[in-house]
Amino acid sequence: MTNDNLRPVYFLSDSTGITAETLGNTLLTQFPANNFDRITIPFITTDEQARSAVRIIDGHAATGLQPIVFSTAVSNDIRQILATCKGIIVDLIGAHVGQLEHALGTRVSGEPGRAHGLGNAARYQSRMAAVEYAMEHDDGQSLRALEKAQVILVSPSRCGKTPTTMYLALQHGIFAANFPLVDEDFEREGFPKPLLPFVSKCFGLTTNPLRLSQVRTERRRGSPYASLRQCGFELRSAERLYESHGIPYLNSASVSIEEMAATILQKMNLKH
Amino acid sequence: MTNDNLRPVYFLSDSTGITAETLGNTLLTQFPANNFDRITIPFITTDEQARSAVRIIDGHAATGLQPIVFSTAVSNDIRQILATCKGIIVDLIGAHVGQLEHALGTRVSGEPGRAHGLGNAARYQSRMAAVEYAMEHDDGQSLRALEKAQVILVSPSRCGKTPTTMYLALQHGIFAANFPLVDEDFEREGFPKPLLPFVSKCFGLTTNPLRLSQVRTERRRGSPYASLRQCGFELRSAERLYESHGIPYLNSASVSIEEMAATILQKMNLKH
Repeated sequence: MTNDNLRPVYFLSDSTGITAETLGNTLLTQFPANNFDRITIPFITTDEQARSAVRIIDGHAATGLQPIVFSTAVSNDIRQILATCKGIIVDLIGAHVGQLEHALGTRVSGEPGRAHGLGNAARYQSRMAAVEYAMEHDDGQSLRALEKAQVILVSPSRCGKTPTTMYLALQHGIFAANFPLVDEDFEREGFPKPLLPFVSKCFGLTTNPLRLSQVRTERRRGSPYASLRQCGFELRSAERLYESHGIPYLNSASVSIEEMAATILQKMNLKH
Repeated sequence: MTNDNLRPVYFLSDSTGITAETLGNTLLTQFPANNFDRITIPFITTDEQARSAVRIIDGHAATGLQPIVFSTAVSNDIRQILATCKGIIVDLIGAHVGQLEHALGTRVSGEPGRAHGLGNAARYQSRMAAVEYAMEHDDGQSLRALEKAQVILVSPSRCGKTPTTMYLALQHGIFAANFPLVDEDFEREGFPKPLLPFVSKCFGLTTNPLRLSQVRTERRRGSPYASLRQCGFELRSAERLYESHGIPYLNSASVSIEEMAATILQKMNLKH
């Protein structure tokens, strides 16, 4: 099941394991050697599940490479069971609890944290509503209720509007619409009419012509749409439009969806 | 800007701040009192930005409540500057680096981690492709290329198919389609024909009748569609279909989108 030449890395959690994976991987990227075999075990909520995780980890004892075990389990009982395994335990919760207890002058409750849990029904509903809004208002499909948008992403086709919009909705519960800029807009050097009342909510995306051409080529190889010349024209024109209308913008070529979303929240001063 | 009765909590990061927020909030939920004023400062990548963050944090010195500062900054220089602030620094990276250096027998590089960074262009493209696939195959819109789906979510309307599909695509790069179950399917007690070749890829969602009725009422108040009777009928019928076709399923009523996605990955044995 696992490769004996790689060091096993486990991400253990009483919830989804996303935080353990993310912080664990951030820590691992600091080490040049990258010969890790990553395994996530989520939803460890009972003592028996914790003991089962320990048995899986200890199954590597014969390979010689001691597993690294990142854990975000919150319950004291479960953390104590996990601590008995033969791996190197990096306890991402336990390491900080004492410091916070001291600072806040109170003891922890020891209940599972559910960083990615339901939280409350209201938050769930607001994310659902945001995703629905994003789907309805993808690529300029609907002009209805644009006044409800907290941000409207604009750009030429294939600069990353859709995934960024979805991420803003899903992760941050932001009502985000997106709208394409097309040749017609560039020819008359004007901003799309339906968006004129909402210019202050607009945020522009751009990218590098070569990158855009590559992405468009995957969709329509050899088309004028995918040509470097057309891509360069659209991006230059879009950037000119952003500048003439005072629209903040971002080059999506070298940043991730998460970074774009965080930048947009910051620049548009959106509270999530 | 901040409320003096609340204890300021800062999430500092050289990237998006998502990990600092998530782990910091998990830790804070362990403490009963919840009087925190949360502020995220992302993208602290230069010494000057770090000094500016310290100035902001030290601006609270007069209020009496010492700020709590969660940091995932990776660079030694930046961590050293942040450590000079008058808050209680919870260094989510520094606390674990020494242990890992010892375990791996090597020193850290000290480069920014970018847990939510671009990583590599291939990963970015695969997420873009997954989001595009999810958009195209939302709510049974397209039956083209269903064989490419890694999972097909099925359920009656409004059980959470769309946000879960989007999350699987965005967070995990999974090719996910979703397909509605409707009265027609229940009446003939059969599975939708277009999905029959792909039953082994299907995963069902269900929820509680009362909850479904509430969600549907928001959309169409007083309609038969939103009635408790109709909701109960659809959910019972759907669960019967899942069971008769051996389709694993999950009740979405008390879990978050992240938990649903993590459960689906686990039960469908999907590698992300």
